Amino acid sequence: MVTLSEVAKLAHVTAATVSNVLRNREKVHPDTAARVLKAIDELGYRPNLNARALAEGRSSTLALMLSNISNPFYPEFVLAAERAARKSGHFLMVCNTDDNAETGRAYLNQIAGTLADGVLVMNTDIAISDLYASAMHNAPILLAMWEHPESPPTLPCIAVDFARAGALAAHHLLELGHRDVGLLIGDGCGGLQDARSNGFRAAMLAAGIEADPTAALQIRDSIDAGYAACMRLMANRPELSAIFATNDLLAIGAVQALITLGHAVPDDVSVIGITDIQLAHQVHPALTTVAIQTAAVAELSIERLIGLIQTPEHEPSMVLGPLPELVVRASTGPRRKR
Amino acid sequence: MVTLSEVAKLAHVTAATVSNVLRNREKVHPDTAARVLKAIDELGYRPNLNARALAEGRSSTLALMLSNISNPFYPEFVLAAERAARKSGHFLMVCNTDDNAETGRAYLNQIAGTLADGVLVMNTDIAISDLYASAMHNAPILLAMWEHPESPPTLPCIAVDFARAGALAAHHLLELGHRDVGLLIGDGCGGLQDARSNGFRAAMLAAGIEADPTAALQIRDSIDAGYAACMRLMANRPELSAIFATNDLLAIGAVQALITLGHAVPDDVSVIGITDIQLAHQVHPALTTVAIQTAAVAELSIERLIGLIQTPEHEPSMVLGPLPELVVRASTGPRRKR
Repeated sequence: MVTLSEVAKLAHVTAATVSNVLRNREKVHPDTAARVLKAIDELGYRPNLNARALAEGRSSTLALMLSNISNPFYPEFVLAAERAARKSGHFLMVCNTDDNAETGRAYLNQIAGTLADGVLVMNTDIAISDLYASAMHNAPILLAMWEHPESPPTLPCIAVDFARAGALAAHHLLELGHRDVGLLIGDGCGGLQDARSNGFRAAMLAAGIEADPTAALQIRDSIDAGYAACMRLMANRPELSAIFATNDLLAIGAVQALITLGHAVPDDVSVIGITDIQLAHQVHPALTTVAIQTAAVAELSIERLIGLIQTPEHEPSMVLGPLPELVVRASTGPRRKR
Repeated sequence: MVTLSEVAKLAHVTAATVSNVLRNREKVHPDTAARVLKAIDELGYRPNLNARALAEGRSSTLALMLSNISNPFYPEFVLAAERAARKSGHFLMVCNTDDNAETGRAYLNQIAGTLADGVLVMNTDIAISDLYASAMHNAPILLAMWEHPESPPTLPCIAVDFARAGALAAHHLLELGHRDVGLLIGDGCGGLQDARSNGFRAAMLAAGIEADPTAALQIRDSIDAGYAACMRLMANRPELSAIFATNDLLAIGAVQALITLGHAVPDDVSVIGITDIQLAHQVHPALTTVAIQTAAVAELSIERLIGLIQTPEHEPSMVLGPLPELVVRASTGPRRKR
């Protein structure tokens, strides 16, 4: 790697002058600056950003830690976060902790405060106390997609009202006349998606419909798991006229299971999910879902993280993200008597 | 952020001693080391890795640059690459260049040789000449998933024999009796997937079947595009008994279009893709495809990149990845007369 000293030697100046050309050009005579820039160009010198970040006490890189990059929700969040970071002149590095708390802590130690100025953390298994300790000593940490706005964490966060998302799904199914609804509850990277199922159940109860524990299954957050669980649910409870899944992957798996079983969707059974991942509009029938506004939450998260880097907070604050919204597509319809 | 000097002060030692405790503990008296470790613990000090990497001329972070994180192939590659990197004690940072050459160059300038010791580049739009210049001056660059093993690039690469993948798809359809085959050719992040379609066409030609240019469409690499293109293809060429798509996203979109049109898959029309993304086995009917062994290629790429960091090459070498393999599932079957 070409060093600053080699540039200085070629341009017949001191290393301090090269450094001034890079940072405070007004201090350097134009002729000298031109000579230095020519040497930089000839040698292909790249300022060592580690050194510069150290010298100036800042870098311009943010990190996003997430637990499972192969779950399509995360790449969609990454895409929007990276665009938002770039728009404000920051780079975004993504670290996949692979559903492993120890890996997560190792990444945090490697990057926080050194390679990255601030860290966005999404649903990793790292304990809040570990995150808190890192935030105190290294760089600001912001939790994105906090699922329980009613109980804020000890770190700054962007919360999403997932209980409301569940309630919106319930209202939609109730309006279509559904009473016998099966529940697929995801147990994913962020833990059990109970804010969503509790919100759903509370809205059903308010309409006089009590939850039937035998019509609910807790399963891992994947298409395969949704498929298998829906098969079990329909075998045990053939009278179900609708299925609510706490996320789109489960709902997409459930639709495939229903079609395999010979049930028409939505004519025989309606299906609704939560999130609105890209795949939700790409499958056929296209999935009705409650959009959690992934891109908007990602942008808000990047904006807040940059704010925390510029002005550290003494008391962690929670910001509520945009409200979830019902997106009606082709997988839900009026209940029909069979 | 706590500094080394603060640790030294609290432990009543010099900064050099703290540094020795962190790196060459055998040089330090055990009692002194214990005092330093206690101070590190009390203050929550984290060694500044930038500084250490600078001092020792090494860091342990690799970067992976890719163009489109929301295409599910990339997250699957990331997952395997991150696991392989971690197994050998390296961290992996992922940068999404968002299909934009300028963004790609900016990331490369930001990370190569400073934040990352080596860079794995996948199908970005950055010109080879820019990559080459960066590799000369900064850190090794390895191209992963080079699609044209017959013409090696000027940088080290892992090549995949995509022409063979296309030929395997052709042999499978020929064995099933298909003669009228539609082609969906992806034009994605890595450019036109012509190695795949050329391999397919060459194998068909060897069996005496000439390509019909009106049965081929070049489209963007997505489920939506595959759906729309298959609709057009079947409207113009209703006699087609099979569809070959150069990647699974297109094939999955094509299956959905056929079902929407009332064609049974595979009884009326067979569909085959290339890649074997997770979704390929999750959709119903499960997709027949040619697996390019994504995880194995990712592991090989990480291993080679680490090798290049340890022993730089004077002449770039190409390594051929594992050979593509046919995976027969439920979307292909014997040709039936309609």
